[in-house]
Amino acid sequence: MNFSSKLLEDAVAEFATLPGVGQKTALRLVFHLLNQDKADVERFSSTISKLRNEIQFCEVCLNISDSPVCQICASPKRDTDTICVVEDTRDVMAIENTGQYNGVYHVLGGLISPMDGIGPSDLEVDSLIKRIKENETKEIIFALSATMEGDTTLFYINKRLKNFAITISTIARGIAFGGELEYVDEVTLGRSIITRVPYEKTIT
Amino acid sequence: MNFSSKLLEDAVAEFATLPGVGQKTALRLVFHLLNQDKADVERFSSTISKLRNEIQFCEVCLNISDSPVCQICASPKRDTDTICVVEDTRDVMAIENTGQYNGVYHVLGGLISPMDGIGPSDLEVDSLIKRIKENETKEIIFALSATMEGDTTLFYINKRLKNFAITISTIARGIAFGGELEYVDEVTLGRSIITRVPYEKTIT
Repeated sequence: MNFSSKLLEDAVAEFATLPGVGQKTALRLVFHLLNQDKADVERFSSTISKLRNEIQFCEVCLNISDSPVCQICASPKRDTDTICVVEDTRDVMAIENTGQYNGVYHVLGGLISPMDGIGPSDLEVDSLIKRIKENETKEIIFALSATMEGDTTLFYINKRLKNFAITISTIARGIAFGGELEYVDEVTLGRSIITRVPYEKTIT
Repeated sequence: MNFSSKLLEDAVAEFATLPGVGQKTALRLVFHLLNQDKADVERFSSTISKLRNEIQFCEVCLNISDSPVCQICASPKRDTDTICVVEDTRDVMAIENTGQYNGVYHVLGGLISPMDGIGPSDLEVDSLIKRIKENETKEIIFALSATMEGDTTLFYINKRLKNFAITISTIARGIAFGGELEYVDEVTLGRSIITRVPYEKTIT
């Protein structure tokens, strides 16, 4: 592209570093910002800068938080005997949005992925083990992605937990609500038959 | 969405103000930035702020520029007798990318659009007329979008120019290169027959 201005070129280049944003989209976003009030753009820019510089992680569960201990861990209403292990803060948000879980979380900060050079020591596994020991946790629920990386991580942590007298479960895999049987892949359908659930349990 | 942090919520809200960016995409972009180095995010943020605060417009053609007069207007190689009238800087970039035009530009800063409350006085029409008078311009080429707004703007400026002894032209409308005839809309196909071009002209 032929840019008439270095400022414009730099801004487009910065936006184009974002995932899913190419040169044309970046240009559109930059022109959108140019048409906004100076104060609005200043707020946009300072919010981003502030986010990266002031972000904190909960000392207990490592979730993103504005205070040393996050709202979930600090709440007296949550059941601290049950820990749900997730990959990142987005998963915490997704589960919180369902309103179906009243325990606490543990954010691993990623999944084991030898391809990307991420090993167990890069994740918050030791802090999880330490937490289970200290808090006499009763149940661990794994809510990890149903991918190779998710399964590897699950396998590894499960092995580290074998000497603890705790219940270990994973979230149910199966056919999504509203999903039509004929379009479901064979692995999911096969597993959903093996892990079938008594009918009474599904209508509570 | 349930945000565990106000900083996170604010950043997502800011990104979600961008065109074509919803809450989920905004969240993805914010997490991408959180995984970057502090210095990279700081540069991203300051580039945006700098862009909006330091952007200048060429005194002659009103194109975005880093200097009082833009590179195109300042170049001795450009033919200043021909002015191409465009909506905004993106159109200047698009035409410059073709490498087919050697004249100068005039950026209107928008198109007449009564629906959006944009009238002729909101556009750089007076400065165009003044420029034509002072520079004894020979030709005006309109390169505006083929929309209701583009046509209205063209009609209005053309009327204002009727007392000047200049050639007025518009960029050619017709079937795009590589376009198959059967998929072209009727209006475009009809106009392309009426405004047919001698074959010799197309092979130069």
